[in-house]
Amino acid sequence: TQQLLATPTPRARPYRVSNWDRTVRKGIMADSLEDLLEKVRSALLLVGTISVVIDEDGTSVETEEFFQTLEEGTVLLVLTKGQIWRPAKTAGYQL
Amino acid sequence: TQQLLATPTPRARPYRVSNWDRTVRKGIMADSLEDLLEKVRSALLLVGTISVVIDEDGTSVETEEFFQTLEEGTVLLVLTKGQIWRPAKTAGYQL
Repeated sequence: TQQLLATPTPRARPYRVSNWDRTVRKGIMADSLEDLLEKVRSALLLVGTISVVIDEDGTSVETEEFFQTLEEGTVLLVLTKGQIWRPAKTAGYQL
Repeated sequence: TQQLLATPTPRARPYRVSNWDRTVRKGIMADSLEDLLEKVRSALLLVGTISVVIDEDGTSVETEEFFQTLEEGTVLLVLTKGQIWRPAKTAGYQL
């Protein structure tokens, strides 16, 4: 129990993860950013370097610390090399 | 505990920091303005003098005291020499 008090075991929390063009979205449980990246990789069959951003505003999630502050159910977008975040809503651009 | 009472340890809080033209936005944990500036510098690879303003209205955040009053998740813009804040929304520019 001493160890538990010193470093509380992170609890796996739910996230919703889309691919770059938002054609696929999967619910993924993860207890850390590293864990999430690993599970996203296998769930979305991605290879190479991947990164995650917050779907809402494109904020890059690069550190465990910042990742832990995200709310449960946060929608994330996973990007592979060369892919960039674009806003989901295209109101005003209805060509 | 005496030390803790005298100077409560500031808790790192999450901020979202964009570069000048809002093409990059990163989640950054910081417990002080000084800490934030240091982390922004390395996360966004900036050199020289930098300053942060509130993305929403361009308010300069120049003191630790004011910085501590910002809410978690506040979106900040980082400016280097010669860069100025411009409003994010381009409503009215729908060409």
